[in-house]
Amino acid sequence: MKTHPFDEALQLESAGSEQADTWLGASSPAYWNMVGPFGGTTAATALRAILLHPALLGEPIALTVNYASALAEGPFTITARPVRTNRSTQHWTVALSQSDASGAGGVVMTATAVTAARRDTWSVNDTPMPAASFSDASPRLRFAAAEWTKRYDLRAVRGMIPQVWDGSGQGGDEGSLTQLWVRDDPPRPLDFPALAALVDVFYPRVWLRRATRVPAGTVSITTYFHADRRQLAQSGEGYLLGQARAQAFRNGFFDQTAQLWNEAGTLLATSTQIVYYKE
Amino acid sequence: MKTHPFDEALQLESAGSEQADTWLGASSPAYWNMVGPFGGTTAATALRAILLHPALLGEPIALTVNYASALAEGPFTITARPVRTNRSTQHWTVALSQSDASGAGGVVMTATAVTAARRDTWSVNDTPMPAASFSDASPRLRFAAAEWTKRYDLRAVRGMIPQVWDGSGQGGDEGSLTQLWVRDDPPRPLDFPALAALVDVFYPRVWLRRATRVPAGTVSITTYFHADRRQLAQSGEGYLLGQARAQAFRNGFFDQTAQLWNEAGTLLATSTQIVYYKE
Repeated sequence: MKTHPFDEALQLESAGSEQADTWLGASSPAYWNMVGPFGGTTAATALRAILLHPALLGEPIALTVNYASALAEGPFTITARPVRTNRSTQHWTVALSQSDASGAGGVVMTATAVTAARRDTWSVNDTPMPAASFSDASPRLRFAAAEWTKRYDLRAVRGMIPQVWDGSGQGGDEGSLTQLWVRDDPPRPLDFPALAALVDVFYPRVWLRRATRVPAGTVSITTYFHADRRQLAQSGEGYLLGQARAQAFRNGFFDQTAQLWNEAGTLLATSTQIVYYKE
Repeated sequence: MKTHPFDEALQLESAGSEQADTWLGASSPAYWNMVGPFGGTTAATALRAILLHPALLGEPIALTVNYASALAEGPFTITARPVRTNRSTQHWTVALSQSDASGAGGVVMTATAVTAARRDTWSVNDTPMPAASFSDASPRLRFAAAEWTKRYDLRAVRGMIPQVWDGSGQGGDEGSLTQLWVRDDPPRPLDFPALAALVDVFYPRVWLRRATRVPAGTVSITTYFHADRRQLAQSGEGYLLGQARAQAFRNGFFDQTAQLWNEAGTLLATSTQIVYYKE
């Protein structure tokens, strides 16, 4: 059986038994974006290093990934350390480094995460899935320039990427709102790393809001996992409904909130990111 | 002039010139919560250690704080390191440690942050301040058990803390929504550490949603600063309007989004947190 490109992108090799926290990987051409790989893949790699760790407690609850520098083509080193293990929660710090041409090391990404052993408690979903029929969605979306978008089957319901870059952006409640159906291509059973990447598939809100394609890139993303392993299994290879929207654009940075539901209407993850933009 | 209790709580002393990244502080009885100080003070302390650093570039853009363990009464050590400095952004990692009775050190809090030199760009606020008249707000809110609530003048407009714990929580759009006016008491000119604390003044959404007071505590909080120094100065000592709401409650953890506007209607900060709860 052929390995899924996402699993290939996330391959990590142990750096040896004396460095149990450290793994070696390489940036993935299959998920290439403009000046480095799709940030979602990098976030998923941070989470994978945690999930591989022999001391892991429970399942992911929270993940924050900071993009300190563009990840270059080629190998990297990633370290995931459990800095505090409590009875039912565990706190992680992660760093990804890459050597430059001169051999000097540089931090490319930092992350923190919380994993936890969940217990059954009173639960309720206060954010119902928006009405968004799959059959009314647009044909599959592609950004010609970006290889990574071929790895996702993206079908916009609202807030499609502008077809004309004429600066005609609109405000109001739907000014920066995108809703879309999404799944891996080829389809792949949902797991936590996939979810960490999928929350980041929305193109920059500033492009939609302004209908102007300015340089933009995520600086930091935080994702909360509401799903547990069972709910991921129930999602299978199905489409997820994703929603993203900005709250404020201010002097070079905007924020973007996102939610992902499975077809059954279960809210699987909520996420927020801060994005650099120019002009 | 008497030092403001918030500035007292945030006092940090250099650990010496050979440890430029490290500071010594102590947890603040004036901001005591149930089993440790108000988490907002801890987040503000993380930010203050960054702002004190001689290598600081620009102003805070993003801050994620992870509460690994309850902060005990007494001294702590905090380290803030600029792990990557780019042309206009800088990435930070922070750790706060406390020795236990046996003298062993333990990580109590980890944090990451991004600071940046902002440039004037196209800007727009896509989240207008909700209509919430100050004169219609409830009288000042106090939680009898918590010392820290005396340090904030909190006036709920909607979603007041339940007066009766009868399990009568309601769903719908306003199920977990709180809007309140807030400022430091005594009043204090707004700065970035104050903002990092103020986004965390909302009581746990699970209490409102269920009208049941279950044990709950923030595990991780992420704040994006949309305000720059000028907008903080414009806010002065005025009240801020704060809004908080949950998106999902699931098996021991719920999330909470928050926004803070100044009286002029400028969105100063947006925040999200994941909170542990029992039962």
